[in-house]
Amino acid sequence: MALDPALAARLKRNADGLVCAVAQQRGTGEVLMVAWMNDEALELTLTTRRGTYFSRSRNKIWVKGETSGHTQQVHEVRLDCDGDTVLLIVDQAGAACHTGDRTCFDADVLLSPDPR
Amino acid sequence: MALDPALAARLKRNADGLVCAVAQQRGTGEVLMVAWMNDEALELTLTTRRGTYFSRSRNKIWVKGETSGHTQQVHEVRLDCDGDTVLLIVDQAGAACHTGDRTCFDADVLLSPDPR
Repeated sequence: MALDPALAARLKRNADGLVCAVAQQRGTGEVLMVAWMNDEALELTLTTRRGTYFSRSRNKIWVKGETSGHTQQVHEVRLDCDGDTVLLIVDQAGAACHTGDRTCFDADVLLSPDPR
Repeated sequence: MALDPALAARLKRNADGLVCAVAQQRGTGEVLMVAWMNDEALELTLTTRRGTYFSRSRNKIWVKGETSGHTQQVHEVRLDCDGDTVLLIVDQAGAACHTGDRTCFDADVLLSPDPR
């Protein structure tokens, strides 16, 4: 099944044909991960409500959690103002990060809150 | 001032020398916008605590709100597991989106919560 042409026309893909995708946990608002989608991944995400991305390293569609079981049930998808990024509101099963951390942003703090 | 070499070595920049940057409102958790940073923009963000990006369309450093007044006070910066995306926890003054919306994801809902 192809992406709705009206939606496809609104996407501003990068040179690799991808849009950026931010996954956020429903309720808590945690930013879980950032990944990439081609048209097929977006279409699959919208129709199956399973977070589905395009793996740049493996050059293929990737259903989040298909091997780890750490799936994403997708509640909402929003497109940003310039059409190059989608925001997914999801229920993340287990860890979103391949390291086992809850989010991909848990481990490496570059700047902490200013104590002043 | 140059980015700390130890940090610079950990960044995984795209072909344009940029990392992805997600700005999230402190407290509410709203995902405000997604933009891009080169090393200089990240260094300026870390040292000034003003959200500072690299404009791909204008090909220059861009201090968020420098013309609109809609600045970002940066509380935290985190690097993701593979070094290609930073998450900024900010206090956003006014609208984050150039359209006047609070966030860049307010206007265009592709998928709504499943009523089931």
